[in-house]
Amino acid sequence: MSTSKRVYMDYSAGRPLDPRAIEAMLPYMESRWGNPSSLHVFGQEARQALDEARAKVSQLINAEKKESIIFTSGATESNNLAIKGVAYRYRDRGNRILTSSVEHMSVVNSCKFMTTKGFETVFLPVNQYGFVNLESLEKELTDQTILVSIVYANGEIGTLEPIKEISQITHKKNAYLHVDAAAANGQVPIDVKSEGIDLLTLSSNDMYGPKGVGALYVKEGIRIEPLLHGGGQERGLRSGTENLPGIVGFGKAAEIAQNEMQTEGERLTRLRDKLIKGLLDPIPYSFLNGHSTKRLPGNVSVRYNFVEGESILLSLDMMGVAASSGSACTAKTLEPSHVLLAIGLKHEEAHGSLMFSLGKQNVEDEVDYVIGLMPNIIKRLREMSPLTPKELKK
Amino acid sequence: MSTSKRVYMDYSAGRPLDPRAIEAMLPYMESRWGNPSSLHVFGQEARQALDEARAKVSQLINAEKKESIIFTSGATESNNLAIKGVAYRYRDRGNRILTSSVEHMSVVNSCKFMTTKGFETVFLPVNQYGFVNLESLEKELTDQTILVSIVYANGEIGTLEPIKEISQITHKKNAYLHVDAAAANGQVPIDVKSEGIDLLTLSSNDMYGPKGVGALYVKEGIRIEPLLHGGGQERGLRSGTENLPGIVGFGKAAEIAQNEMQTEGERLTRLRDKLIKGLLDPIPYSFLNGHSTKRLPGNVSVRYNFVEGESILLSLDMMGVAASSGSACTAKTLEPSHVLLAIGLKHEEAHGSLMFSLGKQNVEDEVDYVIGLMPNIIKRLREMSPLTPKELKK
Repeated sequence: MSTSKRVYMDYSAGRPLDPRAIEAMLPYMESRWGNPSSLHVFGQEARQALDEARAKVSQLINAEKKESIIFTSGATESNNLAIKGVAYRYRDRGNRILTSSVEHMSVVNSCKFMTTKGFETVFLPVNQYGFVNLESLEKELTDQTILVSIVYANGEIGTLEPIKEISQITHKKNAYLHVDAAAANGQVPIDVKSEGIDLLTLSSNDMYGPKGVGALYVKEGIRIEPLLHGGGQERGLRSGTENLPGIVGFGKAAEIAQNEMQTEGERLTRLRDKLIKGLLDPIPYSFLNGHSTKRLPGNVSVRYNFVEGESILLSLDMMGVAASSGSACTAKTLEPSHVLLAIGLKHEEAHGSLMFSLGKQNVEDEVDYVIGLMPNIIKRLREMSPLTPKELKK
Repeated sequence: MSTSKRVYMDYSAGRPLDPRAIEAMLPYMESRWGNPSSLHVFGQEARQALDEARAKVSQLINAEKKESIIFTSGATESNNLAIKGVAYRYRDRGNRILTSSVEHMSVVNSCKFMTTKGFETVFLPVNQYGFVNLESLEKELTDQTILVSIVYANGEIGTLEPIKEISQITHKKNAYLHVDAAAANGQVPIDVKSEGIDLLTLSSNDMYGPKGVGALYVKEGIRIEPLLHGGGQERGLRSGTENLPGIVGFGKAAEIAQNEMQTEGERLTRLRDKLIKGLLDPIPYSFLNGHSTKRLPGNVSVRYNFVEGESILLSLDMMGVAASSGSACTAKTLEPSHVLLAIGLKHEEAHGSLMFSLGKQNVEDEVDYVIGLMPNIIKRLREMSPLTPKELKK
């Protein structure tokens, strides 16, 4: 049982580059290799390209000016820089950090790391859909709180958090709001001004730009401690020779996302909803994780009772379909996803979950293919499972 | 006075990618975008490519095994990770770090940063050629010293440090030796085993690989604290989704460097020595910075009395020639290079210096072109300079 078909529905783990982003990058890989810090004409060319990319990324999120964008090596670095950078810088104002229980591991582990440096971190609870509990936020937001870090949209269950409301509550106590938008950027519109976001993590690859590049938006007036010391690039906040081809590709991807996000979002939403329906309706004891509408356009997270998600993934993999059990960052551990546990799933329900994340190259035929496979996969696995009730084994 | 000629002799600020590295990267940009942490077939492909690149980089420096290589976002991050990572991890053994006065700013500023965390940093003196004073090293190496960080070759004056001797001294006191080989890697052979190197910083772009990628070699048995927390990639020492296209390109560049370094090094050494001779012989009061033979194959650093290096660079730039006044990381500051001051130059001598760094695309004609330009440039600038003795203005 193997196939030459290859259906990739794991976009949240990695995305192809948009060919237009590659095209934009190639000159900087092949012939324009100047260093933006150099004073000669090669350096000037590079500096101009850097400025243009910075402007494109800042426009995507409606930042007040392009200088509010700090380029980094990716979302993990941006999350580390935001959390540690604000915490170290404003230590004299307080030592309390609030975050949610559905964050990416780079936020979770940066916050945990800060507890070894005298900070207190609270992981706010979420409801069954993954929405942060706003009453808990209000309650835990003491005068000692300097930072609240909440994900824009969780990459596993796709839930879009109520960022504007979170911002309003956060700002009542003069804490700063950091938002990790890695899973959301380029998929849904983000407006740092109208949503009241102080720091925002962006990921290039998650919007079909190159890997190894990201950015941190830092609102004018907010100061952060750098993590990497050196030549003083990025206004001294992120040293290291600029990855110019990567940054140019990121800029192009941001521009494309801004232009095409709406059309593509509507297309993916249709595919998503068809896939959800097709995966759940024909199969009993099947459930959607997360919210039915307030979710990322391409995100499908489902669970089936009595079977292991890993076994389903293996069966799908043999049929050429790539999906995942959650974040790729935690794929190799046997622990159930902390996100699925946070929304109240039991261990066995979390283990029975799997995620499809759809993207640009997915077409309706592929959705139909996966929908067609699932009933037999689940039936076979349930037949082998000692947990399956007898009436389902008929 | 302008020209369409473009002669790039600032390779230390930025290098073109080797077309073979681009070719190796493209499939991972276009169609193989899997995440090495994913369990499905796309992930397996990615994991295999990651392993192969790691092996190639480890072979270039004769590392004991490929797992000793940690991929980072570049040399600045590697230097930060090495210095902070060892310092935080072995704080209980001591609080003293020795480094030299001819280090890259990412080493200088990482070491300075650690002094704010209770560490003591000593910047060892160098002689007129830039060689670290070994007697000072012996003297300053106390029982409290946990780390010695020395550059393999300085990028500005090209001086190759006596790493093996430095290692032998360092190990007498059980300190670890970190070597920043960013400017040297791919230019000269490096052997971590026979040279006794415990941690080694590598830069991809400096060996014609992509920007935004680097590595830190960490000898088996040495432990470091991570700087970036998250999904636990790179054995937990460097979280963040792997920049696979970049890493694959870096691996290819390392493989090419290993095969071609000797031939290319001999070619560049000939060009270098011709350029040095041609820049100094016809012009009085001109000097070489650094050592005549123990220097990087492509490095030429010279100085002319009575004139400013910046003015020479501007004149060269108008004739299409890109050179630099030192490290690109410090090009925008008006401070004289700390490296040139460390080898004993006066401020005005440091300001009168300029650097050519030659690379793969440079040919003898270009060397001749630059040699042909310089006498008139210097003559004209000296005529305008109030510092020039009368007999030179004739």
